[in-house]
Amino acid sequence: MEGDGTTGWHISRPSARGAPLADAGSMIIRAVLGRVFSSVDASGPRPVLTLGSGDPTACASFRPPPEAEDAIVDALRSGKHNGYSPTVGVLSARRAIAEYLSRDLPYQLSPDDIYLTSGCCQAIDVMISILAQPGSNILLPKPGFPLYESRTMFSNLEDRHFNLIPDRGWEADLESVEALADENTVAMVIVNPSNPCGSVYSHDHLAKIAETARKLGIIIIADEVYDHLAFGNKPFIPMVIFADIVPVITVGSISKRWLVPGWRLGWIAMCDLNGILKEAKVDKSIESYINITNDPATFIQGAVPQIIANTKEDYFMKYLIFCEIRQIYVTAKLDLSCLDGIQDDLDFCCRLAKEESVIVLPGSALGMKDWIRITFAMDIPTLENALERIKSFCQRHAKLEA
Amino acid sequence: MEGDGTTGWHISRPSARGAPLADAGSMIIRAVLGRVFSSVDASGPRPVLTLGSGDPTACASFRPPPEAEDAIVDALRSGKHNGYSPTVGVLSARRAIAEYLSRDLPYQLSPDDIYLTSGCCQAIDVMISILAQPGSNILLPKPGFPLYESRTMFSNLEDRHFNLIPDRGWEADLESVEALADENTVAMVIVNPSNPCGSVYSHDHLAKIAETARKLGIIIIADEVYDHLAFGNKPFIPMVIFADIVPVITVGSISKRWLVPGWRLGWIAMCDLNGILKEAKVDKSIESYINITNDPATFIQGAVPQIIANTKEDYFMKYLIFCEIRQIYVTAKLDLSCLDGIQDDLDFCCRLAKEESVIVLPGSALGMKDWIRITFAMDIPTLENALERIKSFCQRHAKLEA
Repeated sequence: MEGDGTTGWHISRPSARGAPLADAGSMIIRAVLGRVFSSVDASGPRPVLTLGSGDPTACASFRPPPEAEDAIVDALRSGKHNGYSPTVGVLSARRAIAEYLSRDLPYQLSPDDIYLTSGCCQAIDVMISILAQPGSNILLPKPGFPLYESRTMFSNLEDRHFNLIPDRGWEADLESVEALADENTVAMVIVNPSNPCGSVYSHDHLAKIAETARKLGIIIIADEVYDHLAFGNKPFIPMVIFADIVPVITVGSISKRWLVPGWRLGWIAMCDLNGILKEAKVDKSIESYINITNDPATFIQGAVPQIIANTKEDYFMKYLIFCEIRQIYVTAKLDLSCLDGIQDDLDFCCRLAKEESVIVLPGSALGMKDWIRITFAMDIPTLENALERIKSFCQRHAKLEA
Repeated sequence: MEGDGTTGWHISRPSARGAPLADAGSMIIRAVLGRVFSSVDASGPRPVLTLGSGDPTACASFRPPPEAEDAIVDALRSGKHNGYSPTVGVLSARRAIAEYLSRDLPYQLSPDDIYLTSGCCQAIDVMISILAQPGSNILLPKPGFPLYESRTMFSNLEDRHFNLIPDRGWEADLESVEALADENTVAMVIVNPSNPCGSVYSHDHLAKIAETARKLGIIIIADEVYDHLAFGNKPFIPMVIFADIVPVITVGSISKRWLVPGWRLGWIAMCDLNGILKEAKVDKSIESYINITNDPATFIQGAVPQIIANTKEDYFMKYLIFCEIRQIYVTAKLDLSCLDGIQDDLDFCCRLAKEESVIVLPGSALGMKDWIRITFAMDIPTLENALERIKSFCQRHAKLEA
């Protein structure tokens, strides 16, 4: 790192895999949305309609269950949860989550298998950080959740992408998985239910994934942050039911199901029936990494048992029924050949923001170039209003027939 | 990373600077205390007295100000803070912290200078992570706070230690600082008020530190997590008053002053009067790194303005007066030559835990081999009881005079 001749100060210009670190997080959804937002014409007469983020709390009609808020207040007022928590998390919370995740499983997870994290994002941060070794690589789905790419970039872990096949319900292309994997592959990531595709994997497909991973000798990181938000006739099936075949590390959180992404309470669940992860000291490494990074707020951890115990099933049903009627996300492929002078998905979204004050997410942020993702987790009038504006935008920019 | 022949699984054995990652966090205070705790004789008749951690909330007589708890409840019940926060943090909270830190400063910090973090620990994590570059090094105080060593180890950032001089009130040995620094030195860390030494630097010494850093062309990371917990006749002086001489990055939190370490609300404050950090894109790098790691809970961020505005000065005074009477920490050098068969500070603490059910911190965890640190943030009866037990332990193990 050279000293800066012009000022005489020695300050590193932080980088990740050669690129400036300042760019590493630039494709993160909230960073991309920031660029789209900045295109909005502030002098525009109409309110800005935001269908870009995956945060349902942006919609006034969605509130967390009152039982969950009460649990937080009780934990706070108890005065018992103001201090530091144990590295791995408060035991009562780990036990409650182990039981929550073990429902309908052939075996029970133990509290010792659970590590509490500051949302699912820290769970991903922890797993990528501890698995990253010089020369190693990880298999990621495409389309996928961009945090994985940014995190692997920062950790100098090579990411290799296997395709999800649209006309097969976004199932993983397991042939490309086999082609990509080698002896330096540390893990394979699956996101189920899928963000951004909204698809849910069948028991049969999950079994094939497990068999493939076992054959290749790589562990599975199952991102199930949308667990139980399965719609249509396909039930959500947790990857851990195949943990007898392959070691499974599940990452999740209360963010989506309880509509509290801002509470930052997630977990890593290690299902290691054959002791393969323990032998590699993955458990100790997770603990060690959390030791030197951080934890969720202690009183939020302390509230977890009550949050899980007291939230009524009909709360989930209400939201789930909403999801069944209208998926949380709809992804749409842009046919740029029909649109006059629109360069790509980012251009589409920035112009839409400028001309119609409507925010949708450019697919590029999800590895889906020239797609857009629209969040439908919205009250009906707002949604209708937004779709009207998108329609008139497209009509205005449609190429005229010859 | 070799595949494991015995199982056929390819799992990296995570490492940091060659050593197993599982060890990187092992000297963290809570990890060391865990080892001391495990020595306690569970069948012992007496209650375990814990004078090991720096967490005053372990003491029943210390509770956060009710105004702070009310602020959290109000922010939660408002329903406005359940979603994701902006990467850099909620604006109202950043403004409140900028104003809080700007009191008595010759200039005002702006909300844009403030980044909210999940406690001071994440602030340290962020700064070490973005400054670490191949071949670079950082100057750390000895004795110091072990998280810095663990974090630099994980980031492959070389740590070089300058001494704090006991008989000069633990002032930094600036000659050794000059001897250690080179063109690859990215920053110098000072902890003031000092953990573990409990000392507070004078205006004169801080000015000398600033001048030295300026001369060497290195920025200062000022760890002021114990800000305003200065006792005796020395007032706390923030390092930023010298930001016209050297760029200062202050890390802090509400943990200690409000007695809420478990709330995980800290900050990075960048004071960059000459635009040196901005030119190196340090600001963008902080944002980018927080983007790919995590944030404090949004409703806790949302409570910050009310926490700062409503907490009455007499609350701080009460705690501060307590601190003046009895420092939070007392560090004592063990004279092992007077003790029979005690190997070192860790051995002393483990045996004390086993025989007397008293927990104190081995100095090794703070870079102070054969010292112990006793937390005095304790109710009087407990403290007297604990000191009695320590006394009888020492008498029992005293070498008999020939």
